[in-house]
Parts: sequence; C-alpha cells; structure tokens
Amino acid sequence: MAVYTEVQESQLASFLADYDLGRLFALKGIAEGVENSNFVLHVEAGYFILTLYEKRVAEKDLPFFLGLMEHLASHGLSCPQPVRNRHGSALGRISGRPAVIVTFLEGMWDARPSEHRCAAVGKALAELHQCGADFALSRKNALSIEAWPKLFEEARFRAGEVRDSLADEIEKELFFLQKSWPRDLPRGIIHADLFPDNVLFVGDQLSGLIDFYFACTDQLAYDAAICLNAWCFEADGSLNKSKAKAFFQAYQKVRELTVGEIANFPVLARGAALRFSLTRLVDWLNVPANALVHPKNPLEYIEKLRFHQQTKDISELGL
Amino acid sequence: MAVYTEVQESQLASFLADYDLGRLFALKGIAEGVENSNFVLHVEAGYFILTLYEKRVAEKDLPFFLGLMEHLASHGLSCPQPVRNRHGSALGRISGRPAVIVTFLEGMWDARPSEHRCAAVGKALAELHQCGADFALSRKNALSIEAWPKLFEEARFRAGEVRDSLADEIEKELFFLQKSWPRDLPRGIIHADLFPDNVLFVGDQLSGLIDFYFACTDQLAYDAAICLNAWCFEADGSLNKSKAKAFFQAYQKVRELTVGEIANFPVLARGAALRFSLTRLVDWLNVPANALVHPKNPLEYIEKLRFHQQTKDISELGL
Repeated sequence: MAVYTEVQESQLASFLADYDLGRLFALKGIAEGVENSNFVLHVEAGYFILTLYEKRVAEKDLPFFLGLMEHLASHGLSCPQPVRNRHGSALGRISGRPAVIVTFLEGMWDARPSEHRCAAVGKALAELHQCGADFALSRKNALSIEAWPKLFEEARFRAGEVRDSLADEIEKELFFLQKSWPRDLPRGIIHADLFPDNVLFVGDQLSGLIDFYFACTDQLAYDAAICLNAWCFEADGSLNKSKAKAFFQAYQKVRELTVGEIANFPVLARGAALRFSLTRLVDWLNVPANALVHPKNPLEYIEKLRFHQQTKDISELGL
Repeated sequence: MAVYTEVQESQLASFLADYDLGRLFALKGIAEGVENSNFVLHVEAGYFILTLYEKRVAEKDLPFFLGLMEHLASHGLSCPQPVRNRHGSALGRISGRPAVIVTFLEGMWDARPSEHRCAAVGKALAELHQCGADFALSRKNALSIEAWPKLFEEARFRAGEVRDSLADEIEKELFFLQKSWPRDLPRGIIHADLFPDNVLFVGDQLSGLIDFYFACTDQLAYDAAICLNAWCFEADGSLNKSKAKAFFQAYQKVRELTVGEIANFPVLARGAALRFSLTRLVDWLNVPANALVHPKNPLEYIEKLRFHQQTKDISELGL
C-alpha cells in the first residue's frame, strides 16, 4: 500500500508521447497494490491507472499478465484493460521500471460482502474460468503445493513466536495434503488471489475484477476454494453457509463443478487455507517493527484450516 | 504519504447521503499529504478529493483552513474548493474523523521548476497575499520565530548525530535572529509551506495551489522568503539568481514589496531556512528506522542558511 517510485512530470511526458491520449492533466499516486506503484492518471482521453512494476513482479511474467487482462476484457469480463501505445505495445518503461497504462475500473471493494455479493463473485469467478479456457499462454503457479514446504522452512523456527505448536500443526497438515492433494482435476487460468479487495462493486452490481498478478495455470476448483475462504467466513471464524451456498450456486450456473472437484473440495479448501497461512506467516515474521504496512494475521487462516479439518461432509460447505 | 484511515463503502455512502453528488463510483486512497488521509472520489457529479483529518491537524483550525480555501477560490485564486453539503456545511465526519470533500485540482508538481515556473509561483503568491487581505479569520503561526527555540530544544542533544557542531551553529543563528527579526512588516494571510509539491502545473500554466494546512497570519514577506528558498536554489546548493529575479519581478507586478520588506529580506530568508532546518531535524531524529516515509534531509536547509549568512547585499538575492 504505497508508492515506491516517484514519477516526474518530464518522465511521464516522454512516456505519454508514445500514446494517443492527449494532454496530461494530473497524476496521483494511490495506496493500492503491495507489489507495484500505482497512480490515477488523468489525460485528455479520460482517467486511467498507471502501474510501475517493482522488483517483486518478474518482468518475464508481464506478457502473461497483460495478455490475460486483454484476453478476458475482449471476452466481456470486466477487468483493467491494458492500453496499447502507437507501436502496438502495452508495455513501456518509466524510471527504469516496466510501466503500463490500464483502464480505470469503477467500484469499491467490500470488507463485509453480503450473500448477494458472494453470489456475484461466484458467477464472476466461473466466467473467468470459462473465458480463460482459450487463452494461449500459461504460467506455473509459484505458490502451489510444491512451494509450501519451502515457505514452511522459512518460517518454521520462528512460528512459535506467533503461537505455540504452530510449526507442528503446519507440518502435520503439509504431510496430510501432500498425500491427499488431487492432481487430475480440470485445469485452466485461475486468479489465485480473488479476495474482496480485488473485486469492485458499484451499488448492487459487480463492476470488475482487479490485480491479476498472482494469476496462473492450476486446478480451477482450487481457485473456488480460495474464494470460499476469503468471502464466506464471518469475522468470528465461522463459515456462513448461506453465503457459501449462494457462491457455489452462482458459480455452477456458469460452470458446473465435476464430481471429482466436489469430492475433493474439502482438501482443496484445506490447501487454500494453508497457502495463505504460510505466506502471511512469512510476511508476519519478516515485517520491520515500525513498518507502515501491517501484515495480515496468519492465525485467521489457521482457524479456517481447522474448520476444514473438522468438516465431515461437503454439505457443511454449502455444496 | 499514506492513507491512515480506511473508508468502508457503507461509511462513505452514509456520509455522501448529505451531499447532492449522485451515485458513488470509486474511491482510491492517494499517497499525498503527510498529515491527512486523502482519496480520489468519483461520483456522478465528477471527480473530487476526500480528506479525513488525522490528529496532527487541530479540529479547531478547520474552519480557518476551509474558510480560507473558499475565500481564495471565490476571489479567483485556483485552489481546492470545499464542497458544502445540503445543510450548508463543508465539514462532516467519517469513522470518527472530520472529513471534507474538495474539488479535484488538475496539474502535476515539478521537482525542478524552470525560471518561467518560478515567475508563475511568484505571481500566485502575491495574488494569495492580496486575496487574503479581506479574509475575516486569522490564525497564529504555530511555527513562527517564537516556536523555534522549543523545536531546537527537542533536537539539541542529538543534533550531533546529523553533523558535528550542528547544535552550536543553530544556537548562534537563533541568537542572531532573535535580536534581528523584523516585527512590523505588512502582515496578512500566508501559505507558509508553498514548496513545489504544493503548486500544480498543466503544461505552461500554473493550475493551482494546494495544502493550506500551515496557512496562518504572519508577515507577508516571510512567505516570499520561504518560496525563494524552496524554488530558486539548484541541487548543488547555489541560488539561481535568474530564477530569483523572475520570482520577485512576477511577485512585485501584483504586490510591490515595501522598502522595509526588501531591507529585511536577508534576515527573513535566514529565518525561513532555519525554520525548515529545525522541523526537518526534529523529523529526522524521530523517524522510526524502518519507516516507509523518509524524512527530508535537514542539511539541505542548513546549506541555504549558510548562503544567506554570507550575502552582503540584497542584489545577490535577485532583488
């Protein structure tokens, strides 16, 4: 949530010289995106978002991310659409950093989404999975089950600072998941981080999805499991079954889950909970004491993991 | 440069219910303003800035700041204009904090302003001084010469961490200024912080002045001294006399400096240099080691102070 790179007027002017966007009116750095520097850009052609990619996004992945946003937008999914310059390229450079202009998406995110909005995100996720089917590029999931043991090793010896016996609990879960993880479910493009802050609403309508910088190729139902955990739990740690039902029903109206996906959902949900427990734990243990950006509490996701460990039947998930 | 307070859609919706601005489309936290949380607000009526005042701005001062912006805007000076709600008030409350909506001002600030832009800011400053003349409210300058000894005491015993003998140098200057400071120059409304990042340009034109949260009642020429230091020095620490001349000429086309103001300018410039040396020094010594907001180097202003100590004649300042 910060602007890491300041952009001078002269740098921006020479960058914009390659675009047909008219005069420059304003640029405001926005507190959005942990990995990149983002700005609201006002030019004669309207309002846009300018993104400068900082080092945490690999430059080699940018054609995938930008191509995916173009592909999805061209299939009618509302997401930021990269703007191409006069040379036909969406990717330029400012201050030595890769830079793109994307369309400004209206809407606000909702920290406490209603059942209606859980349904809306279910529908949008299924549409994303369908639109992604004929996208030509692919990208390995850098935070898949293969990556979890390494994340655990980074945190293992200090996990006790967060909670006693946390390391044991994670180790046991990792062991369980590695022997139980499904490998043959339908695969495709997944968003992989479709939390409420990446979904915008204007009034009753979902207005768009943002932040595709974790998008990759993986099992589709795993993406739905990430959403279930992010959208359908209450602040007290309980699953809101009505929201879960609404989410799944709306998803399945667009894309029906297979028998295998449904049967494996509890395991996928445990994996999704562990993945965010692990990344949050690593961030939590590595944040500078006085940083302005406060990392999210890893224990929130450990509680979700425990919930999924205790379910006996998929009907408890609203499926 | 941060958003200190998150604003939820529901909080914003109930705040906006008092305004005639139509539907809410978007809100983006912007990395602007050290004292407040600022957002780009998009509603049916257009784009605005929403400001939430954090604790560093005293609530009792808000009628002065908001009234001043309204007063200046109504006199044709381009600055953010508070938007009044249906009850005629510009001041509301979100999340327990005082909150206002002001008009969105186009333009970008310029870290290396040209001679032409130094002239533009000279003209705008003089216009501000003239427009302020019939503003009914007044506010004591909380960072006037009376406040400098206290700032020095906060930093004195650690000033050596920044540079050896810095405390001695500041103490001698304080002694000099206290016996030489003019007290009877023309007074009025001053901006008191008109640095380049508070002046916006669209192309060749100055499009507006922002950030009036240090504005107060003080000697007008002191405001010009603050600007001279902030606008007319080069990165190598030397005064650019052409820029200074352009600044003063443009200022005096609108408001002529008095004989007393000109004679006292070198002392005012020393005071302006010391005031920013002191506040930067205090910030520098009190910043958390890992903070994302990096304080400005106090020594930049000590160099400017030394320059002014050595001038023998006002013609060296471009006057």
